[in-house]
Amino acid sequence: MSGVIAVHVGAGSHSSSLKGDYKLLCKRACKEAIGVLQQGGSALDAVCVATQVLEDSPLTNAGFGSSLTSDGNVECDASIMDGRSLRHGAAGAVPGVKNPILLARQILDAQAQPLTGGLVPPSFLTGTGAQTWAGSHGVETCEPRDLIAEKSQRIHEESVRQIQRLEERGGKRRRHILPEEQEEMQGALLDTVGAVCVDGAGYVASAVSSGGLLLKHSGRVGQAAVYGCGCWAENNCEGSGLNISVSTSGCGEHLIRTMFARLCAQSAIDPQPLGTKLVDSINTNFLESGFLEGIQHRMAGSLILRHCPSSATTDLYWLHTTRTMGVGFMTTADTKAQAHFSELPSERIGGTVNMQFKSFGAGVASTSGAGVGQEEEEEEEEHEERSGSEEEQPG
Amino acid sequence: MSGVIAVHVGAGSHSSSLKGDYKLLCKRACKEAIGVLQQGGSALDAVCVATQVLEDSPLTNAGFGSSLTSDGNVECDASIMDGRSLRHGAAGAVPGVKNPILLARQILDAQAQPLTGGLVPPSFLTGTGAQTWAGSHGVETCEPRDLIAEKSQRIHEESVRQIQRLEERGGKRRRHILPEEQEEMQGALLDTVGAVCVDGAGYVASAVSSGGLLLKHSGRVGQAAVYGCGCWAENNCEGSGLNISVSTSGCGEHLIRTMFARLCAQSAIDPQPLGTKLVDSINTNFLESGFLEGIQHRMAGSLILRHCPSSATTDLYWLHTTRTMGVGFMTTADTKAQAHFSELPSERIGGTVNMQFKSFGAGVASTSGAGVGQEEEEEEEEHEERSGSEEEQPG
Repeated sequence: MSGVIAVHVGAGSHSSSLKGDYKLLCKRACKEAIGVLQQGGSALDAVCVATQVLEDSPLTNAGFGSSLTSDGNVECDASIMDGRSLRHGAAGAVPGVKNPILLARQILDAQAQPLTGGLVPPSFLTGTGAQTWAGSHGVETCEPRDLIAEKSQRIHEESVRQIQRLEERGGKRRRHILPEEQEEMQGALLDTVGAVCVDGAGYVASAVSSGGLLLKHSGRVGQAAVYGCGCWAENNCEGSGLNISVSTSGCGEHLIRTMFARLCAQSAIDPQPLGTKLVDSINTNFLESGFLEGIQHRMAGSLILRHCPSSATTDLYWLHTTRTMGVGFMTTADTKAQAHFSELPSERIGGTVNMQFKSFGAGVASTSGAGVGQEEEEEEEEHEERSGSEEEQPG
Repeated sequence: MSGVIAVHVGAGSHSSSLKGDYKLLCKRACKEAIGVLQQGGSALDAVCVATQVLEDSPLTNAGFGSSLTSDGNVECDASIMDGRSLRHGAAGAVPGVKNPILLARQILDAQAQPLTGGLVPPSFLTGTGAQTWAGSHGVETCEPRDLIAEKSQRIHEESVRQIQRLEERGGKRRRHILPEEQEEMQGALLDTVGAVCVDGAGYVASAVSSGGLLLKHSGRVGQAAVYGCGCWAENNCEGSGLNISVSTSGCGEHLIRTMFARLCAQSAIDPQPLGTKLVDSINTNFLESGFLEGIQHRMAGSLILRHCPSSATTDLYWLHTTRTMGVGFMTTADTKAQAHFSELPSERIGGTVNMQFKSFGAGVASTSGAGVGQEEEEEEEEHEERSGSEEEQPG
């Protein structure tokens, strides 16, 4: 059977002028991951390489180019899960690690080997302790400032000024803000990245990586580092016979409180091909969830891969309640990767699920149809050749 | 109706000579929490105060007296959940905060108030960033070394020597250790603490606090800070009409991979009073779980409170796969608190669930019976008066 990789550059509010660059990046991440599969690598290897490509780009809010904390630093969250061993490795609020996903992978791998004296290897490391562990386990570390992109510094300074203006305008007592102000700020940089994959042996894996929310407090950890919230991968998911992997994006606090990655995996256990149960479940368990009481705009995105071994088919779903979400995908039988952006009308942001899907049957890729939202036409493939060099990452 | 508080000093391997002191500590924590309820405090207030008492004792692996990291420091995990609002606050690997549970509570409370510019308040803070946030939000901070108890320093030094001996004995290549060595190390200091409560209005809350595993790597976060793993509190749990709260203890890595707190809450939704479904579920979803593949000794404990509003009854369950677990409980109708230790025979550690339970009906406390394991007789109440001053915490 064919292996399938899919990546996302997050659910958020992507700039229209950069969509072409994001798509090229998605395609490049897919191609590198497919190369790994073609050389005998596992799904776990493939999601790791794809996420590394996404982290290295200054376009994304992950690794180099992440959003800055309120005190102007980069602190990253990342995690990875192996659907075969069901192991999970996570790094939270870690400074000075060039590729947080490689640290998460190393944390996952190191759990296979017990430590001297029966000490239990960690599954979740945070902060400078995580950076130290990286250094002693062969994961590349760097000066924390090396991860700050010019763009991130500029956005940080603008955002700090904007907050100061709002505080001055409202006086010390006005902590509540107008809905339009809230939307403006929340749209910024929710674009966590990640990948899902099934390899030729039918094993699934998933990865997620994020610089976290703009102006987050130092030490804040979002869903990308939290078990069951950032990513999920489970062969024979809950005994269903289906192999499912998930990578999420959105507002970390909302995704933690709804354990969003595992929720999506459970919701994708569905005999129906069109995933109506999936949309119903996200409506019930996220948009109408009692766990998000009092939260007006509920921001989530998810990339879900569902492989059915008995029919040798793989279905890919992506859904978001944010304005935009960008994804790419490719199979080992393809010569080209595809990339898409889907978009919600602004009045429906935070209150409606836009779901898209794609089916890959028995080794041959084929589009099955579109979901409940809007989807842009795919860009000309020539665009890729024309501007492929423009999106090379400088860091 | 009566409010009910229950506390635990963890699932682990408690020293026989200290059991009396642990019981007195449990009783004192219960009494202070009942005082809070009697003065009109909520379940959330009560679990916070009870956990604070447990943290302040050098007997427990939480707050002052926590186990030390491999580099000799105290880094604490804690979280708290409100079954009414379903909000959760968590602090992970935080140094220099006297009472980590008060930081978790402040993180929970601060989520009710949106920040300027629509910035999202954090639900999970780690490391020195969490300590800084504590300092700016009225939570008492201290020098990290102020949390190191003499006992912890002594155990740390002995453990470091033991690891060195094992490494020398085995040479560089022998990372696997003998089963008896593993058991000896794993027994040490799993004693996370926590509390569960239902107040007079029927609202539930839960809390958990831990210094983490002995010789853990700096930055390591265990279940006590992870959503769905360390504690759970949900009024009308999954629409069952039951109000359930849970606080867990054991090996954090095992409890994260099985989302143990939420698992226990879901497993307690059971019309049967004897909780057979609870034991079956822990067998299937923890002791036989595919998520713990390759792990021989599976270490968990849980304190579960289930309140049924329609019958005005509250059931308390505690279960563990470790050698010992210590709990205390009290209702607002009681004048005295009770404390118990339950114990598993050593050959069943890590492979059998020992469950105990207690029912409180319509305002009057009554013992319904014991579960599948062994339980010690309660100590004489006089013991409490006699040695009450011995267990006063020095820090």
